Amino acid sequence: MTTTVRTRVAIVGAGPAGLVLSHLLASSGIDSVILDQRSRADIEQTIRAGILEQGTVDLLATIDGSRVHTVGQRHDGIELRFEGEGHRIDFPGLAGRSVWLYPQHEALKDLLAARIGAGQDIRFGVTATAVEGADGDRPRIVAVDDAGVPFEVEADFVVGADGSHSVVRKAISGSHGGFFREYPFAWFGILCEAAPSAEELIYSNSPDGFALVSQRSATVQRMYFQCDPTADADALSEAQIWETLQRRVPGTTLVEGRVFQRDVLRFRSFVARDLRRGRVAIVGDAAHTVPPTGAKGMNLAVADVILLARALEALLLRSDEAPLDGWAEAALVRIWKAQHFSWWMTSMLHVAPEASEFDRRRQLGELRSVVSSEAGRTYLAEGYTGWPLG
Amino acid sequence: MTTTVRTRVAIVGAGPAGLVLSHLLASSGIDSVILDQRSRADIEQTIRAGILEQGTVDLLATIDGSRVHTVGQRHDGIELRFEGEGHRIDFPGLAGRSVWLYPQHEALKDLLAARIGAGQDIRFGVTATAVEGADGDRPRIVAVDDAGVPFEVEADFVVGADGSHSVVRKAISGSHGGFFREYPFAWFGILCEAAPSAEELIYSNSPDGFALVSQRSATVQRMYFQCDPTADADALSEAQIWETLQRRVPGTTLVEGRVFQRDVLRFRSFVARDLRRGRVAIVGDAAHTVPPTGAKGMNLAVADVILLARALEALLLRSDEAPLDGWAEAALVRIWKAQHFSWWMTSMLHVAPEASEFDRRRQLGELRSVVSSEAGRTYLAEGYTGWPLG
Repeated sequence: MTTTVRTRVAIVGAGPAGLVLSHLLASSGIDSVILDQRSRADIEQTIRAGILEQGTVDLLATIDGSRVHTVGQRHDGIELRFEGEGHRIDFPGLAGRSVWLYPQHEALKDLLAARIGAGQDIRFGVTATAVEGADGDRPRIVAVDDAGVPFEVEADFVVGADGSHSVVRKAISGSHGGFFREYPFAWFGILCEAAPSAEELIYSNSPDGFALVSQRSATVQRMYFQCDPTADADALSEAQIWETLQRRVPGTTLVEGRVFQRDVLRFRSFVARDLRRGRVAIVGDAAHTVPPTGAKGMNLAVADVILLARALEALLLRSDEAPLDGWAEAALVRIWKAQHFSWWMTSMLHVAPEASEFDRRRQLGELRSVVSSEAGRTYLAEGYTGWPLG
Repeated sequence: MTTTVRTRVAIVGAGPAGLVLSHLLASSGIDSVILDQRSRADIEQTIRAGILEQGTVDLLATIDGSRVHTVGQRHDGIELRFEGEGHRIDFPGLAGRSVWLYPQHEALKDLLAARIGAGQDIRFGVTATAVEGADGDRPRIVAVDDAGVPFEVEADFVVGADGSHSVVRKAISGSHGGFFREYPFAWFGILCEAAPSAEELIYSNSPDGFALVSQRSATVQRMYFQCDPTADADALSEAQIWETLQRRVPGTTLVEGRVFQRDVLRFRSFVARDLRRGRVAIVGDAAHTVPPTGAKGMNLAVADVILLARALEALLLRSDEAPLDGWAEAALVRIWKAQHFSWWMTSMLHVAPEASEFDRRRQLGELRSVVSSEAGRTYLAEGYTGWPLG
């Protein structure tokens, strides 16, 4: 006989979306159980970009013990660099808000410590294999624990925060899939031992392709450059990596140092066709993927769950189904704006392999239009720092 | 023996660019001769769109007898329409300036009357066949008049304002050509006998494709809808034309009337590789072509010649070559911004035949981003109403 765990909201995935959702639900007195197939240590070692919108930071700061304001660094702008010149986008001056550089694994450490400290039921090493009963009042997750023992979690609502290979998504969309876009390039990312080359992120468009100069700490930096999606991360020497980076950020001399981690990040845009079916919903990477240029991934996940938490509070505390009925549509407005923003930043800054000389000059005309117009800079700053939650 | 006409500036093309240039040069006491292979009547019957930027209107208004302020209509905005809803872009409120609807042939009538009245040497029915001596001090146009008699025009400077099939361009670029972009659609344009369907232009994005509701007068309207570039203008019945237009402007009922002219406008973006060689330059359509969505064609031509007139005044009145040496680069900054703006309006509003469902939703996300942000609306309004002349 299979053990059944009962809770109000069953969440698959202990990433930012699942953890923030359990935090918000707990604040309203709604119990939840979180399942994740990874170990806590694995989750805490996930290396992801860490640009957080003001709204994301404001929420994380409400979590006990959050270090977002102490370890995280406020960034009041970025630099767009093209034709050898840098142009600063002044976020507070243009959009009235900033972003914070706070790597995702640091945010995850805070979230896990706070949730576990508050008695949250989180089960690591558990693989969800299916979701059943979406159309009824008591949907359930079919799972198997790290010892291979099957069990179920039955709840009033099931949320899939289980990433791009989401199991929960299948229960909603079946084989309907979603909307895709592939990009003909990827990012070659490095972590290196070096002092910062710049105080803020530099988004550099060069004739040879895009590069991004980012930061991590006083002694470790994160940098990226556009590469072929089939590139082998180990094929380049350190000298070749630095030669490529230096050439792609013309007009700036980067501080070089030992490269101790390297990876190739594929670009992909995806939005699931359906975000909800009955009593099951998907959020975060389970619902959508954005290319990293717009720095929207984690922020969009948090925006999804802020809206969903409100809808679940209405459903579970007041038996009001209206917010839930409008949730997917409301979330999708922001998701498609973020997809557009991510596509825009990507296409404006990268050199597509198939780009003609016209396309290249048109792109420089676009960059020139944006930086030479306060409205253009503001429009970009609004998107980068994140739209208010509607 | 070939007759040689001598002047200070020899201009090929009596369109807006050539006529405005001769007006500006005459204001500075610089004589010019204009050659055009068409008759005056042919030029005055050229049907072209007629959205004029504030800067273009301000210039035309200085020309004796100009009717731009009396026959032309000031438009203080446009409507962007998508998902069945209209969103007004308020030009004066956002960008501090308006545009004017004044068909190009009306502007040409004013310009021709004023220049001829002022004694301008304009030779109609003359075909320029070559430009020689670009690298010397006295370039010359080799031409043949309407009786087949060859002659030459020798000048201090030769300007090609001779449209997209420019002969003068060959003397500058040789076979170097320029930068192209083709679009996988065209506009099916009509003139019809009807009252206006709207007071301002409606740019409508619909699932079936783009449509533009424009105006001409109280009794005649100009409308367009996206079509295949190989479409036959005569293949559709009037009923089919109206059915297409009505369907593509959802939420609005268009006033129908007899269609008395129809045409298919191919879309093309082009910028010549070189705008000047020595004492020869090209302006307007000879130098660049934009798709019509951004309403930039005539405005960009006028901006070219305003800058060129200043450079020629410096050269010919003060022997100062510096402004001419910087002219092409200065003109190209605006040209590429305008190319971008035209591409942006085109790609944001049309449905590309190869667009995926992702692209379509991303496009709606973009339209939503633009209209829901004052900065987005302002950025669009600035581009549409025209950037200040640098």
